Amino acid sequence: MKKGVMRTGHIQIRVLDLDEGLAHYRDRLGLLEMDRDDTRVFLKGWTECDKYSVVLREADEAGMDFLGFKVDSDARLDELRADLEAAGYATEELPAGDLPDCGRRITFVAGTGHRFELYADKVSTGRHGVGHHNPEAWPEDLKGMKATRFDHALLYGEDLASVYTLFTDVLGFWLSEQAMDGEERIAQFFTCSMKEHEIAFIKQEGNTGAFHHASFYLESWQDVLHAADIISMHDISLDIGPTRHGLTHGATIYFFDPSGNRNETFCGGDYFFPDHPVTTWDAEQLGKAVFYHTRELNERFLTVTT
Amino acid sequence: MKKGVMRTGHIQIRVLDLDEGLAHYRDRLGLLEMDRDDTRVFLKGWTECDKYSVVLREADEAGMDFLGFKVDSDARLDELRADLEAAGYATEELPAGDLPDCGRRITFVAGTGHRFELYADKVSTGRHGVGHHNPEAWPEDLKGMKATRFDHALLYGEDLASVYTLFTDVLGFWLSEQAMDGEERIAQFFTCSMKEHEIAFIKQEGNTGAFHHASFYLESWQDVLHAADIISMHDISLDIGPTRHGLTHGATIYFFDPSGNRNETFCGGDYFFPDHPVTTWDAEQLGKAVFYHTRELNERFLTVTT
Amino acid sequence: MKKGVMRTGHIQIRVLDLDEGLAHYRDRLGLLEMDRDDTRVFLKGWTECDKYSVVLREADEAGMDFLGFKVDSDARLDELRADLEAAGYATEELPAGDLPDCGRRITFVAGTGHRFELYADKVSTGRHGVGHHNPEAWPEDLKGMKATRFDHALLYGEDLASVYTLFTDVLGFWLSEQAMDGEERIAQFFTCSMKEHEIAFIKQEGNTGAFHHASFYLESWQDVLHAADIISMHDISLDIGPTRHGLTHGATIYFFDPSGNRNETFCGGDYFFPDHPVTTWDAEQLGKAVFYHTRELNERFLTVTT
Amino acid sequence: MKKGVMRTGHIQIRVLDLDEGLAHYRDRLGLLEMDRDDTRVFLKGWTECDKYSVVLREADEAGMDFLGFKVDSDARLDELRADLEAAGYATEELPAGDLPDCGRRITFVAGTGHRFELYADKVSTGRHGVGHHNPEAWPEDLKGMKATRFDHALLYGEDLASVYTLFTDVLGFWLSEQAMDGEERIAQFFTCSMKEHEIAFIKQEGNTGAFHHASFYLESWQDVLHAADIISMHDISLDIGPTRHGLTHGATIYFFDPSGNRNETFCGGDYFFPDHPVTTWDAEQLGKAVFYHTRELNERFLTVTT
Repeated sequence: MKKGVMRTGHIQIRVLDLDEGLAHYRDRLGLLEMDRDDTRVFLKGWTECDKYSVVLREADEAGMDFLGFKVDSDARLDELRADLEAAGYATEELPAGDLPDCGRRITFVAGTGHRFELYADKVSTGRHGVGHHNPEAWPEDLKGMKATRFDHALLYGEDLASVYTLFTDVLGFWLSEQAMDGEERIAQFFTCSMKEHEIAFIKQEGNTGAFHHASFYLESWQDVLHAADIISMHDISLDIGPTRHGLTHGATIYFFDPSGNRNETFCGGDYFFPDHPVTTWDAEQLGKAVFYHTRELNERFLTVTT
Repeated sequence: MKKGVMRTGHIQIRVLDLDEGLAHYRDRLGLLEMDRDDTRVFLKGWTECDKYSVVLREADEAGMDFLGFKVDSDARLDELRADLEAAGYATEELPAGDLPDCGRRITFVAGTGHRFELYADKVSTGRHGVGHHNPEAWPEDLKGMKATRFDHALLYGEDLASVYTLFTDVLGFWLSEQAMDGEERIAQFFTCSMKEHEIAFIKQEGNTGAFHHASFYLESWQDVLHAADIISMHDISLDIGPTRHGLTHGATIYFFDPSGNRNETFCGGDYFFPDHPVTTWDAEQLGKAVFYHTRELNERFLTVTT
Repeated sequence: MKKGVMRTGHIQIRVLDLDEGLAHYRDRLGLLEMDRDDTRVFLKGWTECDKYSVVLREADEAGMDFLGFKVDSDARLDELRADLEAAGYATEELPAGDLPDCGRRITFVAGTGHRFELYADKVSTGRHGVGHHNPEAWPEDLKGMKATRFDHALLYGEDLASVYTLFTDVLGFWLSEQAMDGEERIAQFFTCSMKEHEIAFIKQEGNTGAFHHASFYLESWQDVLHAADIISMHDISLDIGPTRHGLTHGATIYFFDPSGNRNETFCGGDYFFPDHPVTTWDAEQLGKAVFYHTRELNERFLTVTT
Repeated sequence: MKKGVMRTGHIQIRVLDLDEGLAHYRDRLGLLEMDRDDTRVFLKGWTECDKYSVVLREADEAGMDFLGFKVDSDARLDELRADLEAAGYATEELPAGDLPDCGRRITFVAGTGHRFELYADKVSTGRHGVGHHNPEAWPEDLKGMKATRFDHALLYGEDLASVYTLFTDVLGFWLSEQAMDGEERIAQFFTCSMKEHEIAFIKQEGNTGAFHHASFYLESWQDVLHAADIISMHDISLDIGPTRHGLTHGATIYFFDPSGNRNETFCGGDYFFPDHPVTTWDAEQLGKAVFYHTRELNERFLTVTT
């Protein structure tokens, strides 16, 4: 948190059918339905204190509308907006309430075509079921995979170099891990917290705004197994897993929501402090870097929604 | 990390016999022996990037010599020293190398009698056995409990009010959790990272510099069970556990090194972001707050080394 | 299964209030309510194929009414009855249906005052929720601790010698583990399957028909932690744990139902084959044999219902 | 154990290079090297009481030499030999010591071309490192995947019908699970213990004596993850996993020894009692039956050594 960005705070995902999408994210992933408006549903994981972190919007095409980062004060929004403008990004301010229960947001588009936004305020509802006064260990009413929080996102794009400058210089993230093809950085993982990544990018030519996956944190490797079981029980489309990543070493499953958006549920993995050396994977080891056990990329790894 | 303090970086623990102490921390906890000088041994957990985090010093009495916090730049040392002085703390600067492989340190004594220090530089040796270039998931040569890192410390003291101001105002930590006896804060947990606590204090009258425990992070609850097994196999003095704390919800064991210093090995538990509500436990629930399953303090909970 | 006894098949437990008892065994342990009659409720764990394994009966005093062993054929009942009579046991036959959905039962009282019975037939309802045709991995509607099966019972008594002969010679069980006080066997664990124990006895003078605990199997050590959490959340009286036993090495919690009957939920532990050496614990090590981590018996360990 | 067969007791596997094979089974799987003769190495898992369960023999072709079942008494050997002969099997007796530390063996070839044998005696060395007198929970000197025991084998073959009769009628196993293609049984899982399978057969035309895998039991799903990590760390050829089977519901990895023999390490899964209904999978669901998460057979599933 070099410049006040605390974490990846919310994501708006497009689904082809809102009811079907809600059933997936609520009943299978185990997110909590917190609110609705005409076209959207607002959800979160039970350990998250803010009111929501995932917004599902019904649309004709799957993909990610935007990813929002929460900053530590309203004043930061103006500072960071100035820094973004100075770096050549066109920014726009969306007023408080444009996203329900959320304060004003500064929105802009990165060189990879992804829309990001910054916000400082959101209604806090506290930890679900347990609260913050003599809190029990966990709530007993969780469903499905019992996702504890929206954790991070992985995006694909062409212009990774400008995104590198954007996240490190302008937004004050740290580079935690990278994959290098000679001198070219083909994968870059950024964090502003102790998580090994709050957001990551992998090089893919010819795509704009490509969305690889939204990731949700589970309590344990036991829960990763149970998540895979739930995928089978409900005929959810599996990508890969249970397995482990080389990058970050998280223990993971990739699968798809009914609209084709990829989800990840994972546990464990490395942690970050700002004085940690950057971890580097060689391009020749990219298979192992991504899927540590099979040591090769699967075909579907190139599939994205946009 | 409001004012540049990154984490609890090292602790110097007094042991009555250095060889015996080393055997405990290295062969039972599974820390790595990194270096020695005439009177001390330097160790760390395998995931820690800096050269060491635990210093064992042979002495006639057990206890903690000091706890050190790592800050994000050398310049921070001067800023924080000035802030400490302004807040009425007498500070002293120890030159680089006074602690081997460590840069200059600013040392001071808190109102509870504990000696703390700040430092910005230490030799980085990277993650043990795996490094940072195409790193494997974990090293195969770990021993005993396979402690991954020195995580935090719990201290006892009388003047919790001044320590509250010291950590929140002067050093820029956040209060994550507390126990309240009416208006009095009898337990206070502070963090400067995503960990639920980097350091914690519990009220105990009449003691100065009292050291409750140093805590080490394990990969999983399975490892907590195995740690308890190792305690039994080697006739180590057990305090309590495996169990869970109410405060932070970490899954834990307390036990003693051969000199009577309490250790904790734990996994899991809550995480922190600066916008999280403070978690409050009522004094009447202190038993459950500390030992979530038994719901009562054990006698030994009052035992400390100083 | 030397003489056709397959396993410990059911237990009838007396509770002071049937609704309260049912709420405990169903909503906290996670057994399934399968049936009721005027005075009793019939339950089972989800992996058990027979219709029920636990019978709760409302009574003025807690304790165990009887423990039933299932044999592999109706003909065995007559053979074993003859063997029991030949060994001096007075037996009685209870007709089919006396216990609903259960075939005829041969009942007798052991030298320790415990009532046991043998039966060969019970209505089979199959694995709950998943069945036996393309079965999913587990059912999603489980509650509380998600107990998978009634596993075994531990009883206290004075005349362990006669019980030894009863179980090994007459009923064809094997002795898997024992604790020896000189030449006297003060703990004896018997099995007729691959479980390390189907039934166990510990020496206690002056008690008749003393019931120490009924034990329920959980999927994993993660589930043992969650069981302990549920104990706390619902103010259930905890005896000890999570911990491990030395005898059998199972990972365990002891706690009490609302009537004071002790329950165990556990996972793992050793397995048995008939050619395995008997495991022996010395009386001086009884603390470690029972509670492997604390290495001492707690006061409550002597408490039983009858 | 209807006719005295206790378990799958040993397997002799052919490897192309004995040192390389030993390094794999000892240092990666974590079996213990117990003995050697001129052409063979004898190993076992640490929980096994008999001296060895896996025999590696150097040969020009990989595959399984024979699989041995341990029976509960020497007299059973003669009874079962007579039953085998009566059923049309040519049997041979190998004298005690032909296999070192093992009593006389009755050997025969099944309709699928697999060589099986029965034996009643083998030198017992007890549980490795802990023994049977005040035994600790586990030994601290285990390597690699820490395989606890040789558990079962899966074989491929054409004449499954005769094998069905052989195992159920002649050897007294129970059928626990099956896959049915209309009226034809294309997969059959047999047990004589509480394990869901001691041996299994899957239909494959045109192959004789085909060896699919030897399976080793691990303590937990955490250990399955670590086993997969070790596979990656040592560039072992992975087949599939970590994942779960539908049949038996065990949580598993398949991989290959340096000679191309498939190994499995797994944990959990269903248990068996003789009164359990047979579990049936439909041929159309065979993908899910074998690999519960991907729900499809991989190409390599057809690969065997012979």
